[in-house]
Amino acid sequence: MTGQGASTTIPERPATDADRRFMAAAIRYAQRHVGRTATNPSVATLIVRDDGTGPRIVGRGVTAIGGRPHAETGALAEAGELARGATAYVTLEPCAHHGRTPPCAEALVTAGIARVVSAAADPDPRVDGRGHAILRAGGLSVTPRVMAAEAAAPISGYLTRHGAGRPEILLKMALSRDGRIGIRGGGQVKITGAVADAQTHLVRARHDTILIGAGTAQEDDPRLDCRLPGMADRSPNRIVLDPRLRTPPDLTIARTAAETPTLIATLASADPERRAALARQGVQFIACEADPETGRIALPELLEDLAATGVASVLVEGGAETGASFLDSDLVDRLILVQGPVEIGEEGVRAPIDVATARCRFRLVREYRFGDDHWYEFERRAA
Amino acid sequence: MTGQGASTTIPERPATDADRRFMAAAIRYAQRHVGRTATNPSVATLIVRDDGTGPRIVGRGVTAIGGRPHAETGALAEAGELARGATAYVTLEPCAHHGRTPPCAEALVTAGIARVVSAAADPDPRVDGRGHAILRAGGLSVTPRVMAAEAAAPISGYLTRHGAGRPEILLKMALSRDGRIGIRGGGQVKITGAVADAQTHLVRARHDTILIGAGTAQEDDPRLDCRLPGMADRSPNRIVLDPRLRTPPDLTIARTAAETPTLIATLASADPERRAALARQGVQFIACEADPETGRIALPELLEDLAATGVASVLVEGGAETGASFLDSDLVDRLILVQGPVEIGEEGVRAPIDVATARCRFRLVREYRFGDDHWYEFERRAA
Repeated sequence: MTGQGASTTIPERPATDADRRFMAAAIRYAQRHVGRTATNPSVATLIVRDDGTGPRIVGRGVTAIGGRPHAETGALAEAGELARGATAYVTLEPCAHHGRTPPCAEALVTAGIARVVSAAADPDPRVDGRGHAILRAGGLSVTPRVMAAEAAAPISGYLTRHGAGRPEILLKMALSRDGRIGIRGGGQVKITGAVADAQTHLVRARHDTILIGAGTAQEDDPRLDCRLPGMADRSPNRIVLDPRLRTPPDLTIARTAAETPTLIATLASADPERRAALARQGVQFIACEADPETGRIALPELLEDLAATGVASVLVEGGAETGASFLDSDLVDRLILVQGPVEIGEEGVRAPIDVATARCRFRLVREYRFGDDHWYEFERRAA
Repeated sequence: MTGQGASTTIPERPATDADRRFMAAAIRYAQRHVGRTATNPSVATLIVRDDGTGPRIVGRGVTAIGGRPHAETGALAEAGELARGATAYVTLEPCAHHGRTPPCAEALVTAGIARVVSAAADPDPRVDGRGHAILRAGGLSVTPRVMAAEAAAPISGYLTRHGAGRPEILLKMALSRDGRIGIRGGGQVKITGAVADAQTHLVRARHDTILIGAGTAQEDDPRLDCRLPGMADRSPNRIVLDPRLRTPPDLTIARTAAETPTLIATLASADPERRAALARQGVQFIACEADPETGRIALPELLEDLAATGVASVLVEGGAETGASFLDSDLVDRLILVQGPVEIGEEGVRAPIDVATARCRFRLVREYRFGDDHWYEFERRAA
């Protein structure tokens, strides 16, 4: 993994408590642009120097919106000459591949950084150890894998895309007290309160794409945007699973496709006239295969193609059939269940999973109470 | 590379002249969907059987528009029971990774194909030899690498994207007899005739993306679409290199961004109000870094990000500065020069390359005469 030209390697200094505190701060900072850095991960760099009066941060950088410049660039620019002899805390191994701008590992060497403390390893084969090797060859002391698990959180989509070849999937469902998600043909049923709704919009802002089924698209006619003050521009792209292309061109998501990229995942057999009508509004299509057993969209193939277009995270927002397909295919990495106080009754559509089953199948990682709503966050259990 | 469970490998039968004829036909067929198969390569499968009366084609398949289903699926469906005992000609090693639909290598085994003749190797690490291994383990005879070089042509973008981590670049320029591409501030100057123009539109249809500079976008206000009868839906996406975001929102490509995806490659420092005005029309942005020497868009970084979003082929259509940047960075894989009979004179903008220099730097692979126009196609010289 390492070793290129590292003949006189500086010994690795073990991480101190101060190192962990600065790394924790860097990881918090990395959260800032999650969902907004296109195909690059949202990472952060802090540059810290100690001139005898205790350590102080002299440069901060986070991956820019859109993915470039990288975090190291901003941090080194802010630090300027103060980078010389300082320690850089990087939440991901610095990049090692060359273009017109030098790779970040080389930029850290050139700036005179003395020591690099890094957290997550980069699964990109063009980095994977080479960033650290450049640093060591440049005479820097490198302390890798400091808080690696914590640093993986803001880049979990990037890691899943490179590791599993598909985006990370978060399934989010709002359940009534009696485990229903709505009434078929009844339009959107209000299940959760204002705070839980605002939280949902925050979750949206952190994802590349929101996915729903064609049934939900038609029944609820949702906007699927981020409606928090000042955060409208954080609305993710939208995907509708619609094998038989039933989506009418006058749905809200179709009418607003020019402003918010909207994809319909459909089969090759979809009606060309319907396709043309939707395309005129700016809807784009993703060619899918049918699951040979159910006739629905084959999800692993769709997710593979989405990853190939750079999508690292997908928020699945229903309905019951769509949620069930992802659960049945074991494609749910994270699960959010929000249970409100309303009762819908027998005529309601039953959710594909309840809190008790989720507790058994997933690992509960966070639990909140927002007014009358219970908010549960689960993660995939380690294999 | 191979060998998984292939304990009793069927000996490899050498390719015959008939094999080469059928493979050549499959490669021609693979051309059909070039530029229209999203992140998947445009490949073809022919299924041929000989019941004693000479070989006949019983199934044909080409990667569907949008990239799915794969070629093998269509060919096996057409062949039906006739696939049993037949030979399959595949222009690319069949895929080996599993989703809800079986991988193509497995589908060929299940259908009872007796022998597979394949051409190009798949650089995707999830295939790379594994497709052939599944076939051999299934008891099929496999003859690989038949006309591999010819089969690489329709999938050259896919191979470049996986091999070099960037899209394949074709630079196309129309030159006057005196080596000018136009007059600065003079709008579009007509250099070539109707036949060469139609050929240009065909070239556009075969690319994922057309790229121009902001100067050309403003001076020429081009549409950059494919204007051949019945081929309007083959218009590629558009990218404008515009570091300082000068593109006015009333340009044709901005006004038509809802129908034809249009990206502007710009720097993080771009004016947010201009950005918002363009975004309202459906223009999307790709965050770029500045080349530290020239202040222009850093091209290798841009191309790396485009490849990460699935772009496999970019047609660069000018102007002189943009062409020069690609040539100077050695990023031109293929070059088309079309020289018309007009003289523009001293006030004209000189092209960044002329036919004589191109002959020296590149390898001339095709040359046509369309009326008074000379059409030259060059390729990168092998390293």
